[in-house]
Order: sequence, then structure tokens, then C-alpha cells
Amino acid sequence: MTVTLQHDPRLDLVLERVVDVAPELVWAAWTVPAHVKKWFTPVPWKTVDCEIDLRPGGIFRTVMRSPEGQEITNVGCFLEIVANRKLIWTVALKPGYRPSDPTFDVPTFTAIIMMEPQGKGTKYTALAMHKDEKDRNAHDRMGFSEGWGKALDQLVAAAKTM
Amino acid sequence: MTVTLQHDPRLDLVLERVVDVAPELVWAAWTVPAHVKKWFTPVPWKTVDCEIDLRPGGIFRTVMRSPEGQEITNVGCFLEIVANRKLIWTVALKPGYRPSDPTFDVPTFTAIIMMEPQGKGTKYTALAMHKDEKDRNAHDRMGFSEGWGKALDQLVAAAKTM
Repeated sequence: MTVTLQHDPRLDLVLERVVDVAPELVWAAWTVPAHVKKWFTPVPWKTVDCEIDLRPGGIFRTVMRSPEGQEITNVGCFLEIVANRKLIWTVALKPGYRPSDPTFDVPTFTAIIMMEPQGKGTKYTALAMHKDEKDRNAHDRMGFSEGWGKALDQLVAAAKTM
Repeated sequence: MTVTLQHDPRLDLVLERVVDVAPELVWAAWTVPAHVKKWFTPVPWKTVDCEIDLRPGGIFRTVMRSPEGQEITNVGCFLEIVANRKLIWTVALKPGYRPSDPTFDVPTFTAIIMMEPQGKGTKYTALAMHKDEKDRNAHDRMGFSEGWGKALDQLVAAAKTM
């Protein structure tokens, strides 16, 4: 039993789209490191490493690399895992639930990724929840919609090769 | 399946004690609002309100009142619930997993409460995990050991009347 999530447009950013791959493939794209590396970071950046311990409190770590070789490591903590339907993780906590340093380049957020079967495809919803409007707007200005949208295009392309 | 918790003495504060009430009573003391109000805040402060939605993402809210009438509300989010054995909650997240404002009076922490049967009693462990030594030490100076210890005395006394 999980809580009902309340979407607050003042505080959240949302990407919602119907994609033509099944929820099971979207799920695999999100939860298998070898797949995540294929799509997670919008080109020309690449995801060069990914670590996933798929259970509440487990690690979700990605390393992104720019064309110039700059690397950024992001570490988050999984919160809820419902296979093929819902994945929740946050950067407000480190693995094992320890509070994280707010030194992350992106404003602290919790991500809720939802997959609903729709025909042969998936209604895909990605929600980024922030503590206040300032963080939400900063994340928006950093290109949330374009970045997460481009990454979703890459996810769909990768899923079709699985 | 849950992650193995790694205790880091540089970053954590721990209260460990064997108490002479069964784990089931300790669990009830922690998870039933009417019971929580009896023990949660060291006297002369009182816990005048408590709200518990006992599931991952659910609210854990308490209101403490000083003898002079000052009220402090603390809101946390449950993360893991294993009946009669383990309760994990954090103030780094609000209910529904939204990152919280770091305006909490106490340094941000995640609490792990563990109960192990020992004879007719319970080996009780309360772990407060912080993001850095600064927060850990501030929480220590605020009287973690005395405060949580005194609250545990109150918990045991309340459990014996259940």
C-alpha cells in the first residue's frame, strides 16, 4: 500500500507522454544499468557509469560525461519500487536513507516515474518534486522539459533495440 | 528485502538499551498516536498532537508544547515499516517524499528504530543519521542522548500501562 501522490504544479515539474514501447521495456530501461547508460543523459553528454541496487534504501548512481571530458556523479536513494509501474527515488537522501548534502548541482528533488499500459504502449509520467517554487523554477530554467524529454526520446529508441 | 544499514560513528548518534517491555509494546508505543503522546517529548514538554500514516511515504507529525505554551511542530516521512522490528523515518522528506525545507530546528536526520526480542524484553536501538559531522555534533550538543534516553524511560513507563 502506497500513499496517493499529490501533484502540486507550483512545486513540481512534469513530463507526460504516451510512448510506443510497453511498460516492461520502459521499466527495464530504468532499472538495468547497461540500459540506463544508453539513454539517461541527453547527447552530446553520455552516461558512462551506472549503479543500481533496486530496493528501498538502495543506491541509484549515475556518472555523466561531457564531450570535453567533464564528469558529474549523481547519487540518489530508491524509495519505492513497483515493477513495471512505478519507481520513486530522491537525491534528498543518500543510499541507506542518510540525508544528503545539498551540494548537488541540480536543486534537490524526488523523482516519481510512472508507467501505465496504453494499447501496446505506455503512458509515461515523470514527476520531479521540489521543496519550494525557487527550486522548481531553477530546475525548470536548467532545461528540465527539454532535457527529460530528449532523454525519453533516447529511452524509447534504446527500448526498441532490447 | 531491505538494505543493510551501515552505522558510521562519525555521522550517527545511537541510543542502545535493553528494556523490560516486549517489542510488540515498544512498537505500539511508536506507532499509535495516543501512545506516542504519552512519551515522545521529555517532560516538562508535552506532545500535544500526533499524526501517523504508517506506510512508506506517510506522515509522522508531532506537536510539542513547552510549559510556557510554546509549540513546535515536527513533520517527517516514514520510509520503512517492519512491524515489531524496525521503523525508519526522516525529516529530510515531507510526507509523499517531497524534499523538506532545511528550516527544522534540529539538524536534518533520518531515524532508525530497531527492536529485537531479548528474553521477555527488547534490545532497543535508536539511530539518528546525519549528513555530516557538523550536524551530528550539533544534534549531540542539543542533548540527543539525554533527551532520547529520557523519552525512552517515558516510553517504557507508558508501555507498562498499555
